[in-house]
Amino acid sequence: MHLTVFGSVGLDDVETPAGRVESAVGGSAVYFSLAASLFTDVRVAANVGHDFPDAAWDVLRGRGVDLSGLQVFADRPNFRWKGRYRGDMNEAETLDTQLNVLAEPPRIPEHYLDARFLFLANSAPETQLMLRERMPDAVCWADTMNLWIDTARPALEALLGRLDGLVLNDGEARALSGEHNLVAAGERLREMGPRVVVVKKGEHGAFLFAPEGRFSLPAYPTTRVVDPTGAGDSFAGGLLGSLAASGGHQDFAALRRAMVDGTVCASLTVEHFSTEGLERADPAELARRTAELRSFVEWPA
Amino acid sequence: MHLTVFGSVGLDDVETPAGRVESAVGGSAVYFSLAASLFTDVRVAANVGHDFPDAAWDVLRGRGVDLSGLQVFADRPNFRWKGRYRGDMNEAETLDTQLNVLAEPPRIPEHYLDARFLFLANSAPETQLMLRERMPDAVCWADTMNLWIDTARPALEALLGRLDGLVLNDGEARALSGEHNLVAAGERLREMGPRVVVVKKGEHGAFLFAPEGRFSLPAYPTTRVVDPTGAGDSFAGGLLGSLAASGGHQDFAALRRAMVDGTVCASLTVEHFSTEGLERADPAELARRTAELRSFVEWPA
Repeated sequence: MHLTVFGSVGLDDVETPAGRVESAVGGSAVYFSLAASLFTDVRVAANVGHDFPDAAWDVLRGRGVDLSGLQVFADRPNFRWKGRYRGDMNEAETLDTQLNVLAEPPRIPEHYLDARFLFLANSAPETQLMLRERMPDAVCWADTMNLWIDTARPALEALLGRLDGLVLNDGEARALSGEHNLVAAGERLREMGPRVVVVKKGEHGAFLFAPEGRFSLPAYPTTRVVDPTGAGDSFAGGLLGSLAASGGHQDFAALRRAMVDGTVCASLTVEHFSTEGLERADPAELARRTAELRSFVEWPA
Repeated sequence: MHLTVFGSVGLDDVETPAGRVESAVGGSAVYFSLAASLFTDVRVAANVGHDFPDAAWDVLRGRGVDLSGLQVFADRPNFRWKGRYRGDMNEAETLDTQLNVLAEPPRIPEHYLDARFLFLANSAPETQLMLRERMPDAVCWADTMNLWIDTARPALEALLGRLDGLVLNDGEARALSGEHNLVAAGERLREMGPRVVVVKKGEHGAFLFAPEGRFSLPAYPTTRVVDPTGAGDSFAGGLLGSLAASGGHQDFAALRRAMVDGTVCASLTVEHFSTEGLERADPAELARRTAELRSFVEWPA
């Protein structure tokens, strides 16, 4: 099944204890698509500035990703983000954000309107709601961030009522639900609309809350965290790509397999700057990491 | 196999978002023994003040715990701790500590000297090392805390070289190993001496690092966290009690089962103030929680 994603394309300046990069390829739509395209056919839509390198799309082109939803602005610079991670690298410190082309509304190609499986990466909830209403028959998942929880809660709550699934991090889950306890937060968020909620916890892994039950999975046990930028979008890409590849049924087993695929994709991203890990990934590497993750959580006989 | 524990007996004033208690029964030796005695025979040693209520030992007496190592000071008050938890309750804020009888050296009853399985709860590393040297043939595990990492590192490093197992929390693991990444921290700590290292992560569960591999387990998914005081000692009690019950072999399967038992014991403690959860626990409740924890982490078919 096709998976359609609306998100951002970024040029990132990132500093971590492992080093730094400037104008590195990033953005939610890029990380998401690179991860999802390891599992299923992907259509991507995003606003792109004149200074974003065309060669950055080569890997996605090679994987047959539909790039016709990219709206390139010949006269506007790309979205830029500058950030820094310290210590345990669980949280980014944003130093600068230049929205540029992100301030423009997204374009929806005509042939995207029949989307059956849709992911709305973090953006203003009003925009996410508009996109969702244009594709009302799609199974729809979304991400969000603290900015919108603080400044656009009514629109975000309206969006929640129109979602099948929500992916967000632990701090966002606490803020949006009003519950400090993450298990209580996940259950409360399901009451706010989405049938399925996934709470990302960075190095601590992720929780799944579904009608059939809950599932906990740790992060892949890497000792080589170079740059966490894009890990959450890579997780979402693996998760949704896996679900779409399962036909979008979203039964509990498919959801748990999708958690595994998302976790493996996030681990590929954090071990390199920018998108290098996801670009180099192949099925053998996915299988190797899946087996190691499985042994990491194997219930004792 | 008998399990011998040296630790503290406490009277705690605790405030959490769920309420408050004053002069509540606590201390590492008490929580540890209540948990461990659900699995194996326990001998406890600790210094006790004149104001500690004798009735607090009734449950341990009922479980056949050997209390002959309790050294009661008729003229000295008990160790007291006053603390507060806020928000996600992952960290205690200490408001006051009165060592009182804890400032005195522990007493080792003659018949404890043949200990085969020994747990040294957090105390000054010099004291832990002295106890270990008096029981050199025991399989010996220990806990520690940031205070000693900061102020007594040489003694702590000497202790590490004499341990079979180390249990500590995530912040302590990072500080003691010098590694921010918890997987790297666990592996580094094993290089510093103990064959097995367990890193407790509060609501995020625990990691096991052993020669045969690594194991990750989440916390039991409770939505009712009343008071985290003693959760770490309860975890250690369940862990070591389970290992002792397995004959102390410490193979990888036994270690993972012990992680499960420790996790279940910690969940019993956090759902009540003081020791109520562990006092009320019975085999049926342990089995129910073990089954729920298993379904929480079940790898998808």
